[in-house]
Amino acid sequence: MEIELHLVPEEKRRPVPELKNLVFGRLFTEHMFVMEYDCRRGWHSPRIVPYGPVTLDPAAIVLHYAQTIFEGLKAYWGVDGKIRLFRPWENLKRLNRGADRMCMPRVDEELVLEAIKKLVLIDQAWIPREKGAALYIRPFMFGDEPTLGVKPSHTYTFMIILSPVSAYYQEGFNPVKIYVTDEFVRAAPGGTGEVKAGGNYAASLKAAEVAKAKGYTQVLWLDAVERRYVEEVGTMNIFFYFEDELTTPALSGSILPGITRDSVLKLAHSWGLPVSERRISIEEVIEGAESGRLKECFGTGTAAVISPVGALAYRGREYVINDGKTGPLARRLFEELTGIQYGERPDPFGWTLILT
Amino acid sequence: MEIELHLVPEEKRRPVPELKNLVFGRLFTEHMFVMEYDCRRGWHSPRIVPYGPVTLDPAAIVLHYAQTIFEGLKAYWGVDGKIRLFRPWENLKRLNRGADRMCMPRVDEELVLEAIKKLVLIDQAWIPREKGAALYIRPFMFGDEPTLGVKPSHTYTFMIILSPVSAYYQEGFNPVKIYVTDEFVRAAPGGTGEVKAGGNYAASLKAAEVAKAKGYTQVLWLDAVERRYVEEVGTMNIFFYFEDELTTPALSGSILPGITRDSVLKLAHSWGLPVSERRISIEEVIEGAESGRLKECFGTGTAAVISPVGALAYRGREYVINDGKTGPLARRLFEELTGIQYGERPDPFGWTLILT
Ligand SMILES: Cc1ncc(COP(=O)(O)O)c(C=O)c1O
Ligand SMILES: Cc1ncc(COP(=O)(O)O)c(C=O)c1O
Repeated sequence: MEIELHLVPEEKRRPVPELKNLVFGRLFTEHMFVMEYDCRRGWHSPRIVPYGPVTLDPAAIVLHYAQTIFEGLKAYWGVDGKIRLFRPWENLKRLNRGADRMCMPRVDEELVLEAIKKLVLIDQAWIPREKGAALYIRPFMFGDEPTLGVKPSHTYTFMIILSPVSAYYQEGFNPVKIYVTDEFVRAAPGGTGEVKAGGNYAASLKAAEVAKAKGYTQVLWLDAVERRYVEEVGTMNIFFYFEDELTTPALSGSILPGITRDSVLKLAHSWGLPVSERRISIEEVIEGAESGRLKECFGTGTAAVISPVGALAYRGREYVINDGKTGPLARRLFEELTGIQYGERPDPFGWTLILT
Repeated sequence: MEIELHLVPEEKRRPVPELKNLVFGRLFTEHMFVMEYDCRRGWHSPRIVPYGPVTLDPAAIVLHYAQTIFEGLKAYWGVDGKIRLFRPWENLKRLNRGADRMCMPRVDEELVLEAIKKLVLIDQAWIPREKGAALYIRPFMFGDEPTLGVKPSHTYTFMIILSPVSAYYQEGFNPVKIYVTDEFVRAAPGGTGEVKAGGNYAASLKAAEVAKAKGYTQVLWLDAVERRYVEEVGTMNIFFYFEDELTTPALSGSILPGITRDSVLKLAHSWGLPVSERRISIEEVIEGAESGRLKECFGTGTAAVISPVGALAYRGREYVINDGKTGPLARRLFEELTGIQYGERPDPFGWTLILT
């Protein structure tokens, strides 16, 4: 399928605003990608058009039953002036796994990658130039058939929008304090936690609100069954660096298989660190924080790359990790990953896709 | 607040189609109710307008993070020519409990009830006249702020749309066969199962697909923790009539508190039946089906009222209940409830609201 281009004429293009101090996900570029699906034609009419509103029937399934999935990745402006994507193939595979779980049609991964490339190049003036900043790429699809029957939609819209984002760490690479919830659950085995289904995120809002009200930045989620095993932190995966082991919760079915998570596992392994994926109880974490056996703790995700955790609160007590300071492993991983993303360091794993 | 009316002019009104053999939730009436919320003004501009499309920014939160809740109730054309709603106050309370859970603003229950009444009266020509058929009322609200940050929306749209529906039992009041899933989970304690959040329904599609492929009409959900205790059936609550007890799963936090469920409990109690709300294991159900101690099983919900269950499949075996036939209690409850809804029987509990 050919992607049609209906671009804003040169003389009508908006001047690109100053790309500084941006609040995440508020500013969008001038174009977007759209295609539609119906059972007869499959995906059709892929096109890049001016950024603009979506029109839905008020009975559209997404508004009632939340049949929607999304992805998130970034385009980086390299120190060499080249634009890079980081492991976009993994995002597309994860999107299609999400489509399967949510009874939605799969997309053609090649076509969508082509669409991302074209769209980013068209709006490349919107990629912030400083290191740390990037152009956030948001592919998403939703069911829009106008029917109140609880069943998979027969029609879908797939879109890609772009949002320039500032460096996550504007005030230095500092640790956050997190709040362990044993009240709220993000996802259960047999549920949708391992895909990026919209409903997971709506379900997480309340716990984040409670954590914030208590002065914490993120929620640490425990498993739904025993409320004992660590799962994720906010919308990031989580790692613990114990004395002799870098470990992260195994993919249990309710944990999102993060691409940063996978990259950290591969990098650390290549550095000769003993890495593992296993069950990690909150007691083990607390015991480690108290005894000093837990040297570092950090979240991983596309937005923050690495987010050091300096303290965690559980059942009314606060536990400090690594004296509340960013540890050397978090720092090394952050520098290595961003080094690869911005073309400062070699890319031995073939993780980057250069667009120009 | 005054509800403004911007109606389709009389001479432009569409002729009401024949209200027969309607597929659930496909046909909508000529008007809808809309109001918007922002943090500064609160809910504002309540109005009834011609049914028509919703325009959203592609970054609207509902499309990505599924911040959306809904309700479902019906307007019945009574045998006395009067239009009745059934316990609408309960729907509005449940809507507001959902708003709390999903970090959304509460609505003014009186205003929304006023809106429902006005809207139904305006489009009353669309209420099917035969018993069993009704006008389905769908209030819903969603976050529409254009931002990709995972946080509660600052702006919301609330709408009510109406859809005429045929009698649920077109081919007689016959039992269905249900499939017990021990693979998929609908909701976990600490999750959103006890409110009508859109994400719960998207998450349920896959299990329904699997059940259908195996020849079953509905999924029987087990609890997320032990995968042992019965929770709900499809989008209905479930009841078991054992020899000496009518019982339904207790509201555990992951079960939707159905209004039909509550009405059945109250009715059966008033008839002198021993009723209970408790944990019910799948083993108890199966043992009851095999021994005959389980006399009846049925689902309850606004759509079907009572849905008798004739057989259930669990781990490769099928268990028949009451010889696969509709039992007398299911029938009595169905007749009593529909009798009240259609004004054929007295309404001792004050459940109905007469609009005309
Ligand atoms: C729930 C959740 N966990 C983890 C992650 C991290 O995944 P990734 O490293 O692919 O960005 C994300 C973000 O994508 C997420 O939404
Ligand atoms: C998950 C679920 N359970 C149960 C019910 C039954 O609730 P009610 O009797 O209020 O219609 C519904 C439908 O509203 C539902 O969606």
